[in-house]
Amino acid sequence: MREISKIFVVMGVLIANTVHAQAAELYGLIGKMTTVPGQRDAFIGLLLQGVNDMPGCLSYVVAKDANDPNAIWVTEVWDSKASHDASLSLPAVKEAISKGRPMIAGMSDGATTIPIGGVGLAKSEAETK
Amino acid sequence: MREISKIFVVMGVLIANTVHAQAAELYGLIGKMTTVPGQRDAFIGLLLQGVNDMPGCLSYVVAKDANDPNAIWVTEVWDSKASHDASLSLPAVKEAISKGRPMIAGMSDGATTIPIGGVGLAKSEAETK
Repeated sequence: MREISKIFVVMGVLIANTVHAQAAELYGLIGKMTTVPGQRDAFIGLLLQGVNDMPGCLSYVVAKDANDPNAIWVTEVWDSKASHDASLSLPAVKEAISKGRPMIAGMSDGATTIPIGGVGLAKSEAETK
Repeated sequence: MREISKIFVVMGVLIANTVHAQAAELYGLIGKMTTVPGQRDAFIGLLLQGVNDMPGCLSYVVAKDANDPNAIWVTEVWDSKASHDASLSLPAVKEAISKGRPMIAGMSDGATTIPIGGVGLAKSEAETK
């Protein structure tokens, strides 16, 4: 009886790991922000400080809107929502948020995505190990 | 008098080259598409075929919208608008457009951007040479 219980425990762990592996999908964000007039370049400079050291960040592109002189687009791909959420606690990111807040005039709702693939995704830490 | 003309020609070429160098900015696109119900995965598969061989493409991420079961986001960064436009003539891209068209139910206006920097931009050919 005890052996049978052990087998069920092992099976349960195997199933749980399989489900976890399947659920490990990427996490994406697409957002548009509007800055106070004249502050766009300074705000972009802030956003780009420290983005190279965010664990789990596969893509983080900051772009000017080609038609609205005060609008910025940020498109992000993370290896998980947890990595994104954790990035908000990084000292460099917290400093950028704090300095940048007065430059922001508005934010769109944006979109949350599940990135599937493509070109230009930095290797995740799991892949590079 | 002829020497002065030459000087003006040289100055003109120098100024033209400088202006050209400053104008060499990246080209970005952010677009949302809606597929015919049930066709999203197939359409994403088509989009991802051949995207690794597009000259001048620095980033091309295909993502599912996390909330709309039929919506797809495509975010692109190119080394120039010319490279993007040229990609539309690549055989693999033409084939994908042709096969994918019947799967598309709608397209949003999207945004054209001037990407400034960030993480996950593949190196352009100019940089790798």
